[in-house]
Amino acid sequence: MLDKVLRMGFLYDFYGALLTEKQRQCLEMHYLSDLSLAEMAEQLGVTRQAVHDILRRAEQLLDEYETKLKLFERFQHEQQTISQVYGLISSLSDEVKQLEPVNRSLHILELLLDYGKEA
Amino acid sequence: MLDKVLRMGFLYDFYGALLTEKQRQCLEMHYLSDLSLAEMAEQLGVTRQAVHDILRRAEQLLDEYETKLKLFERFQHEQQTISQVYGLISSLSDEVKQLEPVNRSLHILELLLDYGKEA
Repeated sequence: MLDKVLRMGFLYDFYGALLTEKQRQCLEMHYLSDLSLAEMAEQLGVTRQAVHDILRRAEQLLDEYETKLKLFERFQHEQQTISQVYGLISSLSDEVKQLEPVNRSLHILELLLDYGKEA
Repeated sequence: MLDKVLRMGFLYDFYGALLTEKQRQCLEMHYLSDLSLAEMAEQLGVTRQAVHDILRRAEQLLDEYETKLKLFERFQHEQQTISQVYGLISSLSDEVKQLEPVNRSLHILELLLDYGKEA
């Protein structure tokens, strides 16, 4: 089970575009800027309870999108498999790893895994 | 540019769960069962114009989800890259391909590419 903050970050990256501007703003203030509910309430000019409600609703929607679409799960599965192939090829002798196709494959796989991390 | 039928099939696989039951039913009758508008209208007990409107709306929604989320584009990019790695490793000599980590990598990459096709 992924840490909740990390999981919300990924779900936000996947499905954030389906939320309202206000929901996105709250999630970013909370998860990226690490503001407290009180700080967010002050900046947005609403009550702490309102901030709390918007956050919970946004998190709930992201969870619902993943429950329906399972696209993050599919992506995670792919990344784990790519990582497995990367591990296998990395375990080859230096002699084999110096072969051009092997060398290029390792480089491409690294980019794919980085792409996953940044996503 | 992917053929429209193929593209709709993928978008339906990705985002179909966000459509209504009626929209999904129409898309399946049209794209999977290859029924005509007249046949669909008869089965559903509505006019051909109504079937036409539901189909267009469903296709439009799938396109909108992809425009917002770009998850099919991301998936396609990954599949192309995996296919590139598969090609590179396949090009190695038989001697190298018999090495256990190379052999297993090829097998895993094949599964990943098949998974993409079935998805």
